[in-house]
Amino acid sequence: MNTCAPPLVDQLQPLPLTATTPGSTARRRVLAVGLIGPGRVGSALLAQLRAAQPRLARDAGLDLRLCGVAASKRMWLDCDDPELRVGLGSGAERAQIWRPGNLDEFAAHVTGDDGRHALLIDCSANDAVAERYADWLAAGIHVVTPNKLAGSGPLQRWHAIRAACANGGARFRYEATVCAGLPIVQTLRDLLDTGDELLAIDGMFSGTLAWLCNRHDGNHPFSTLVREAHALGYTEPDPRNDLSGMDVARKLVILAREAGWPLSLEEVDVQSLVPPELAALSPEAFMQRLPELDAPMASQLAAARAGGGVLRHVASLDRHGHASVKLVVLPAAHTFAHTRLTDNIVQFTTRRYCDNPLVVQGPGAGPEVTAAGVFTDLLRIAESLGVRA
Amino acid sequence: MNTCAPPLVDQLQPLPLTATTPGSTARRRVLAVGLIGPGRVGSALLAQLRAAQPRLARDAGLDLRLCGVAASKRMWLDCDDPELRVGLGSGAERAQIWRPGNLDEFAAHVTGDDGRHALLIDCSANDAVAERYADWLAAGIHVVTPNKLAGSGPLQRWHAIRAACANGGARFRYEATVCAGLPIVQTLRDLLDTGDELLAIDGMFSGTLAWLCNRHDGNHPFSTLVREAHALGYTEPDPRNDLSGMDVARKLVILAREAGWPLSLEEVDVQSLVPPELAALSPEAFMQRLPELDAPMASQLAAARAGGGVLRHVASLDRHGHASVKLVVLPAAHTFAHTRLTDNIVQFTTRRYCDNPLVVQGPGAGPEVTAAGVFTDLLRIAESLGVRA
Repeated sequence: MNTCAPPLVDQLQPLPLTATTPGSTARRRVLAVGLIGPGRVGSALLAQLRAAQPRLARDAGLDLRLCGVAASKRMWLDCDDPELRVGLGSGAERAQIWRPGNLDEFAAHVTGDDGRHALLIDCSANDAVAERYADWLAAGIHVVTPNKLAGSGPLQRWHAIRAACANGGARFRYEATVCAGLPIVQTLRDLLDTGDELLAIDGMFSGTLAWLCNRHDGNHPFSTLVREAHALGYTEPDPRNDLSGMDVARKLVILAREAGWPLSLEEVDVQSLVPPELAALSPEAFMQRLPELDAPMASQLAAARAGGGVLRHVASLDRHGHASVKLVVLPAAHTFAHTRLTDNIVQFTTRRYCDNPLVVQGPGAGPEVTAAGVFTDLLRIAESLGVRA
Repeated sequence: MNTCAPPLVDQLQPLPLTATTPGSTARRRVLAVGLIGPGRVGSALLAQLRAAQPRLARDAGLDLRLCGVAASKRMWLDCDDPELRVGLGSGAERAQIWRPGNLDEFAAHVTGDDGRHALLIDCSANDAVAERYADWLAAGIHVVTPNKLAGSGPLQRWHAIRAACANGGARFRYEATVCAGLPIVQTLRDLLDTGDELLAIDGMFSGTLAWLCNRHDGNHPFSTLVREAHALGYTEPDPRNDLSGMDVARKLVILAREAGWPLSLEEVDVQSLVPPELAALSPEAFMQRLPELDAPMASQLAAARAGGGVLRHVASLDRHGHASVKLVVLPAAHTFAHTRLTDNIVQFTTRRYCDNPLVVQGPGAGPEVTAAGVFTDLLRIAESLGVRA
């Protein structure tokens, strides 16, 4: 994961604001939105929101007011001040002002002082932003994020976030933290909220590792496949960030906590595909020594095949909250043996879905589908809003 | 589909009412619920609601008030009248009165005259109930149903229901009409609401037909498999109700309308597996003549295998709104060739999910999972409620 997406604010178009137009729905709601982190996902989200504004206003009675965008060093703020207003002939234009980046000022600007509903969207990958969620939620500001740091980070912070939601009534949603736009967190939530009992979650949460396992058929050394995935842009710039399994482990922690187990990242039994002696090398040195992965991977594949099975990289959570991320041997007829190359797949085994689990499958990465997962969370929050200014 | 589930009201336990207890959440909401059709799904739903009441009151600030159950001939009404109250020592007991079944009286009872939020759940399979949805919605009563008759019935009625929702602000939800508790309608809704563009829906919406196709490997005549499925309870009492493909077609119509195509059931290109000469027989006579299906099914299977493919019963909707339900030949590596025996599967191909579609898979029938789909709809409506008496 990048530590911080490059600020693209300079390249952003001004955000058109929805004029409040009378629609056919009985309920009109206004939601003030601020975006933190205009990187690839954030920019895709802005484009989606901009395209959807007229339709949401007309069909859903929802006025989305995009009030600002904050990058790490600068932020853009929509401004009501008539002195600053940019007059372009129509009443809809408003002023846009630039300021040095400041999360406190940004949140205060989006929240306003008129009792409006406010939502902050964190598309950064910045722990300092996650550190603010609890305060924002306690102040009644909804928070949506594809950022895994809060959901899989320190338990104390997680509990503070949950407590802030329970006490303040603001909502924290994070569907896109697990498999981007696929309906995973919501599906788990619905199973539990309707009284089902979770017995297990098993899945392939990394498109990169799924692709490598799918392609690893003995005809090519594993290192060749890693280089190919790297060249195709399927891996992170440093492939060890995929091969270590830690990103997968974070997703599993998020699902475990959703299911009520206060799991820590450290408690996940993670089998890294990176040998310890290669973990501390520079990225370039690691890529040169990649072939050292070939022999152990080839022998694991041979062992799997000897038993008629396939080798897959699987994250598993059992009914006791035990979590693991590792290469496992599965029967050739297993659902996980038949996924499309880079697909993610998540399988929920519950009391109701016991003999046959509930399975969701599809692409689990990419700016557009990740942004759509964030957008879905925004819409869920909007549905729950009462009519206020 | 049964025309009307047998009334089980006599066997129902009295419904405990939630005492309003202070919880930790800031928002408390009350939702008055009336259930129509206490058959297998309705009874499972009552059990789920009863079990969830204390948790919802405590954790979600939601007081579910079960106000009555209506079967075709009788209805049970919860009653506030102290004269009728059944005193059993605790303040929580209330009177229960019996009346002849009357939908008008039932709806008025659930709605009350105190401005409460009211929800009617239709678990009947009765067209006369679907005929009332538009009026209820126009009056502000939310409606949830697993009953496919409104969603796949006359377009005029469908449009009246949509208009009633748009004008009155009440919500009509029907997740469980398609694949029971699997997240299908909501997933489609989210894709569209976030601005994605639907290119195709393909699926196997019948567990019965999926099972028959999965088992039809040339080792047993098709009729033997139908008899086995019938004996296992996988088929309707008259298997022609599955083999005709009409139930699958109804699900496809519901999804098409959700996607914005005003499709009629008559417009779906449905290939029935029942030859015309067997369509009008008595169920007993049909079962005797079942072997007449064997030769045509065997020849279709042989043709599929000659090309290295598999035979599957697939419902498809394309980007132009054209809908079909038929046996198709698929490559052996196709996702639909690797489902578990009775699983449903639905594949959404969209602009964003184009190379690899979004797939949801799992059991798509059964009272418990169907009831859970209804319950999920109820929770979505509850989330959208403002705080009122």
